[in-house]
Amino acid sequence: MTGLHPGDGSIAVAGAGGFIGTNLLRGLTARGHRVHALSRSWMVPPEGLALALDGDAGTPGVLELLVEGCQALVYLPHGSLPGTDLQTAGQDMLKGLALASRIADICVERSLRLVYASSGGTVYGSDVAVPTSEDAACNPITMYGAGKLAMENVLRVHAWQRGLDLRILRISNPYGPWQLGRKGQGVIGTWLERALAGGAIEIWGDGSVVRDYVYIDDVVAAMHAVLSHAGPERIFNIGSGDGTSLREILDLIQALCPVDVVHRAARPVDVPVSVLDVSLARAALGWCPQVSIREGLCRTLEWLQHRSSP
Amino acid sequence: MTGLHPGDGSIAVAGAGGFIGTNLLRGLTARGHRVHALSRSWMVPPEGLALALDGDAGTPGVLELLVEGCQALVYLPHGSLPGTDLQTAGQDMLKGLALASRIADICVERSLRLVYASSGGTVYGSDVAVPTSEDAACNPITMYGAGKLAMENVLRVHAWQRGLDLRILRISNPYGPWQLGRKGQGVIGTWLERALAGGAIEIWGDGSVVRDYVYIDDVVAAMHAVLSHAGPERIFNIGSGDGTSLREILDLIQALCPVDVVHRAARPVDVPVSVLDVSLARAALGWCPQVSIREGLCRTLEWLQHRSSP
Repeated sequence: MTGLHPGDGSIAVAGAGGFIGTNLLRGLTARGHRVHALSRSWMVPPEGLALALDGDAGTPGVLELLVEGCQALVYLPHGSLPGTDLQTAGQDMLKGLALASRIADICVERSLRLVYASSGGTVYGSDVAVPTSEDAACNPITMYGAGKLAMENVLRVHAWQRGLDLRILRISNPYGPWQLGRKGQGVIGTWLERALAGGAIEIWGDGSVVRDYVYIDDVVAAMHAVLSHAGPERIFNIGSGDGTSLREILDLIQALCPVDVVHRAARPVDVPVSVLDVSLARAALGWCPQVSIREGLCRTLEWLQHRSSP
Repeated sequence: MTGLHPGDGSIAVAGAGGFIGTNLLRGLTARGHRVHALSRSWMVPPEGLALALDGDAGTPGVLELLVEGCQALVYLPHGSLPGTDLQTAGQDMLKGLALASRIADICVERSLRLVYASSGGTVYGSDVAVPTSEDAACNPITMYGAGKLAMENVLRVHAWQRGLDLRILRISNPYGPWQLGRKGQGVIGTWLERALAGGAIEIWGDGSVVRDYVYIDDVVAAMHAVLSHAGPERIFNIGSGDGTSLREILDLIQALCPVDVVHRAARPVDVPVSVLDVSLARAALGWCPQVSIREGLCRTLEWLQHRSSP
């Protein structure tokens, strides 16, 4: 694949109904692509798609139907969120891995590119240099991160042994429209929703925890770019490349929308600092994060305001 | 745990009937330990054990029975060998991972040390510095290696989040008595058996593939040492620290026992060179590999000769 042309075939997206999927579908259709999408549930009714399937990727025949006439499959797995308890996260990991070989089979047999959305915020874990590059050793400290890493490795084995056309995006901490705080997916969505609702923001520990927050439109742009990537690289960090502390996020939100703050004890599963080195994606994908944290917070707040007052 | 005393409690070994397990049981009982052992099948009838259980670790209640009155559990999982086909290896991986959280629960609830036998020959995969140290990035290229690494990571999450007292041994390419060539477990056992039987040795590619062959008695000594390790390290490479090519193994065997050679095409799943840096285990466990490849081959050949001519 040396370039992505809307006429070359549709793009299939599995797990399309969640935060990243909802944005990706809009981004791909806006760029003129025919899109096939599969989800068990949808945040918004799917619109403008060539094919929308309600269902589970694990149901026999569903993935095959999804990818009919497609040139690529973007796999955005459902499953547990980073804070899920160990047992549930472990079961979700097994479900995901049970599907991995089938996904690989489907893509190898049809010569489809597979794009897997991994987690740059959790696969590296503790004791890594910051900003963290793709060749760092991975020591995940959450089951969520261990599960994402196991999926990466299983798919990489299929790429190595069978020529699966694989690209992995290790996405840092995405935020933006359609990340709904009540699902516990991200601190920015949660905090902005609380602030708009007149509630208090909960902050864990001293607010020194640093994350690499990346605006969802930049993630979608990276996914679009990697669909046509022709180089030898297989794994790309996707983030802003900058670290922002919880305290800084709080200050930025306070400047937009004053809100009460409640301090909670630090969560033991957190690594203190997670910031990705995104120079490989910049060089190899010709991609560059465009939206600053300040701008992204403004856009997300506007979206939430527009949404809550139709 | 600041030292291992035979009177402190028994040592439980799961997956005890295979190559490593058979040698470990003998090594532990010879050192005066009370040993509980579990296996689905036994290479030799279990002797001198405080408890021998025939069964599967996945059967409810079996592991709990095994560890009754023990101070540690050594987990030597059954399952696929490195050369197993992708689909079978993937299923074995899922079975192993499904057990991981239960094993962690059992050990955490009873304050048992868990020793997990991982694979230093396969978890690192391609593109690593040689000799390879424990902090290298892991890029397994076989499903066997991906499965071992996933098990390590799941157990490490339990250690990080719940205080599981975990030690992981990344064992290179073990060889010696009870490694039976017909199971396809290792080139040394296979070649020595063929040579003794008057058959031909098959060599893949040009014989330049280099591995770190470690004699099983040295592996058993490392397992014994890690049972009482009190330091902060959790993962140890266990190997000879030296690389030996297939061609060199062949020459050493030819010197002991002349044999015909058949040349086969290289196997694509092989990494060209795998040699472990074992300096951490030397320093932290006070352990040192004692048996040279020449000496180990002699001892293995003697064992095979003794075994085939009772």
